[in-house]
Amino acid sequence: MPYIPLESHLPGITGLLEYRRDTAQPIRELTEILLRGPSSLTRGERELIATVVSNGNQCKFCSAAHAATVDMLLGEHETSKQVKADILTAPVSEKMKALLTIADKVREDGKLVTTAHIEKAKAEGATDIEIHDTVLIAGLFCLYNRYVDGMATAMPEDNGYFTVLADRLVNHGYYRLPQGYDHLKKH
Amino acid sequence: MPYIPLESHLPGITGLLEYRRDTAQPIRELTEILLRGPSSLTRGERELIATVVSNGNQCKFCSAAHAATVDMLLGEHETSKQVKADILTAPVSEKMKALLTIADKVREDGKLVTTAHIEKAKAEGATDIEIHDTVLIAGLFCLYNRYVDGMATAMPEDNGYFTVLADRLVNHGYYRLPQGYDHLKKH
Repeated sequence: MPYIPLESHLPGITGLLEYRRDTAQPIRELTEILLRGPSSLTRGERELIATVVSNGNQCKFCSAAHAATVDMLLGEHETSKQVKADILTAPVSEKMKALLTIADKVREDGKLVTTAHIEKAKAEGATDIEIHDTVLIAGLFCLYNRYVDGMATAMPEDNGYFTVLADRLVNHGYYRLPQGYDHLKKH
Repeated sequence: MPYIPLESHLPGITGLLEYRRDTAQPIRELTEILLRGPSSLTRGERELIATVVSNGNQCKFCSAAHAATVDMLLGEHETSKQVKADILTAPVSEKMKALLTIADKVREDGKLVTTAHIEKAKAEGATDIEIHDTVLIAGLFCLYNRYVDGMATAMPEDNGYFTVLADRLVNHGYYRLPQGYDHLKKH
């Protein structure tokens, strides 16, 4: 039961983004730029960063939403599952292992990122902007996870919800759709 | 020494916001709405939330910047100092004590906010939107603190810097000034 009145058909972050649309707009825009804008990291790789951070913060809604988005982008369920279990043995590139490790440190405390973490990422081919974006995506999901959990938002009743949400995020992105989320549920 | 090349005359968050202006824009906008937009919380009260979170996260740059902003808005240095030391004995309203306590829980983990915290805040007169904004401001500063510390940004050489920055934030706000920060330093 959320701590403030949110529309009951909008679980997790979705009800919060409708509750205050003026603050939602820049949050949506920042997410769209970071996760779907031009980047040398694939959309799947960037959604993996969101997944690792949300999973580490034990935010059930965000973790499920972004793992489902990774799965849809990659066309399989194994990578997100293995990354959530252990970054270093997961089937991702050495560069992604280094970046996901940085993201997980940022999640805990930015001060835990060391020169060694950065040098490892650069040795595996990570660029400055990729490191920057990894840190900022990790910070953004620390915001999202706290927003979703701090307001005690609801989980959807049906896990199939996350497939619908992932489809929305993959095919429409993070901006608000004119009709809200409702019309997507009809598909 | 920052992990990516940032302009050396722009310490803390300021160099990061210039490094990638497209992501900076929605971050600035969200901050402007939350900390300076219409609200039943005063600007000083909202800056106190930013200060408590940044102080709890031990982010030196953000903590100094927002404490200086509180001090300038309130015209004294005691309130920010006492709030950083102990929320419950600080010279703020009972409503603010309840909201700052919620912010500090959100900072640690959103799931630590309990029904009792929310009921206490409501009993002291906090509205739904005030509770919402407190949680979102706390989340936003968890992003800022991690961004600033995760990139190992520099502290300014001179503590007087924070008075100049506070003056900028109090009198101009969080949007980017056309000339950057430089011309403010001349005043």
